[in-house]
Amino acid sequence: MATAGKVIKCKAAVAWEAGKPLSMEEVEVAPPQAMEVRVKILFTSLCHTDVYFWEAKGQTPMFPRIFGHEAGGIVESVGEGVTELAPGDHVLPVFTGECKECPHCKSAESNMCDLLRINTDRGVMIGDGKSRFSIDGKPIYHFVGTSTFSEYTVMHVGCVAKINPEAPLDKVCVLSCGISTGLGASINVAKPPKGSTVAIFGLGAVGLAAAEGARIAGASRIIGVDLNASRFEEARKFGCTEFVNPKDHTKPVQQVLAEMTNGGVDRSVECTGNVNAMIQAFECVHDGWGVAVLVGVPHKDAEFKTHPMNFLNERTLKGTFFGNFKPRTDLPNVVEMYMRKYANLN
Amino acid sequence: MATAGKVIKCKAAVAWEAGKPLSMEEVEVAPPQAMEVRVKILFTSLCHTDVYFWEAKGQTPMFPRIFGHEAGGIVESVGEGVTELAPGDHVLPVFTGECKECPHCKSAESNMCDLLRINTDRGVMIGDGKSRFSIDGKPIYHFVGTSTFSEYTVMHVGCVAKINPEAPLDKVCVLSCGISTGLGASINVAKPPKGSTVAIFGLGAVGLAAAEGARIAGASRIIGVDLNASRFEEARKFGCTEFVNPKDHTKPVQQVLAEMTNGGVDRSVECTGNVNAMIQAFECVHDGWGVAVLVGVPHKDAEFKTHPMNFLNERTLKGTFFGNFKPRTDLPNVVEMYMRKYANLN
Repeated sequence: MATAGKVIKCKAAVAWEAGKPLSMEEVEVAPPQAMEVRVKILFTSLCHTDVYFWEAKGQTPMFPRIFGHEAGGIVESVGEGVTELAPGDHVLPVFTGECKECPHCKSAESNMCDLLRINTDRGVMIGDGKSRFSIDGKPIYHFVGTSTFSEYTVMHVGCVAKINPEAPLDKVCVLSCGISTGLGASINVAKPPKGSTVAIFGLGAVGLAAAEGARIAGASRIIGVDLNASRFEEARKFGCTEFVNPKDHTKPVQQVLAEMTNGGVDRSVECTGNVNAMIQAFECVHDGWGVAVLVGVPHKDAEFKTHPMNFLNERTLKGTFFGNFKPRTDLPNVVEMYMRKYANLN
Repeated sequence: MATAGKVIKCKAAVAWEAGKPLSMEEVEVAPPQAMEVRVKILFTSLCHTDVYFWEAKGQTPMFPRIFGHEAGGIVESVGEGVTELAPGDHVLPVFTGECKECPHCKSAESNMCDLLRINTDRGVMIGDGKSRFSIDGKPIYHFVGTSTFSEYTVMHVGCVAKINPEAPLDKVCVLSCGISTGLGASINVAKPPKGSTVAIFGLGAVGLAAAEGARIAGASRIIGVDLNASRFEEARKFGCTEFVNPKDHTKPVQQVLAEMTNGGVDRSVECTGNVNAMIQAFECVHDGWGVAVLVGVPHKDAEFKTHPMNFLNERTLKGTFFGNFKPRTDLPNVVEMYMRKYANLN
């Protein structure tokens, strides 16, 4: 392309200060360096994580910064050493990466790449420690290696998943964060057997995707647990068959679920990040075989507490990050799953 | 046999009061009723659990009682409805049972039989709520359905594993409790991949069996963790390759292990029952794929505490009961494993 190797001037939404409105600015986007790609962003969505770091309460503030990490785009140009991507490829940026070389990438189980694992404190490229964004020569920080609130962005090749060019980017752009996280938590980690009973704690976007994952896996009872009853009707579309609002009960929700299910659910998936919900999600699984999966990100001072007998009675507690999907290896398949209409993004 | 259907008078070690010396008495052992078997005990060993309930600190005292649950014997007679066992069969009594009918017995994963799961508060037979032991007409309570500190005992058929008659009962009698618990914790639950690194917390009998299980599974580094360095030499015979004594370090043992293993062990097995060791055993496993297994029985007021991020970084925590072995189905195979010299009981 005519722009390859050159600085591109384009529009971006810049956060100048914590909690202050983003401002549309003209930014300069430097060409990709070794193992980097520059991508034209066509669609981007807003995730709560962007808001959390924009508010910057409790974190080291890093401003000015370009947020955004759920997006879809097309490769504009590639840097030295990039062989897996070429200009014109349709891609999803991902906030965590896959170098394909480290022990995590080589493990069949992990997706927590040593090199490119999410790092919210890094505002520069990993190759040279510099930003590719600037305004009047002043650098603007990156966010989680993606910074998709810009018409063009530069990413490490390990944070870019190449997808089927026929996939509608305006829809599948949401697959690069919460939807895959919830879907993978059920399909890859909880793995509910066919005919099993699953409880989903929290019916936001991640929880709805987890319900959908449980349905795809073949669970026959999917119990949505949420304090907000207005979410229940929508959740039926994603596979929930029953609902529990803890506000409707005086008993602990663990006990309510145990009574509904003859001793406990087979699987549970916790998508709120509230530590009490985590404890409930663990304690509500059936002894002997129950598996609980933690997805929601907890408060930094949270403490998970339970009596160890709950484990000794053959319950399992696991956590997941990005639904245990490896970004480059697995995300293309998630897009295919959507295109074959297995998964519901609406 | 000539004794079938009749009361047998024999010797038994009776605990008359909590913490008082056992007394050798002549007891009357009634014939087995429906679904029960009467077994001549040839060998019995002493487990700490016997001592714990004999001391009866913190439990409801139930005396007089006949303790004992690690043993080997020969079936003397069987009650109505018993088809799987016949007089002369060599058997191991088990403190927990397998009815083969309940959801736990039908699950491939659980061994926590609804009907015959260990119950330390029950001192009578499950069929009619009565004891089969008496002295001068006064009933003596059973213990965990086995009461092997008697020349003859009566058990539910579901608590009796039929084994190869060529197995030396004086050796394999220890397989009915702690040894299988440790062995199974590694082989059935932790499942260390070949070449992996495993930490074993606590090098008593259960921990040594867990080390042996890790060795059988193919782990190449087995790190024994114990406060008592005098156990280390013996533990080498069971597969331990390295040792950590937390007393030798000022850093938390989690950190010591992480530094020895480039980020954490692949599997850990906790065999002490101390809740701090449980937390250490969990936090020392590698992110991305580490699995910790709890085996040791905790204090009733113990509380397991950790930061939930330790789970979200893709660590798994599981507990096991009797090494996830189903007593009747699996114990015969454990005996065979011993006979083929895979497992070391010395």
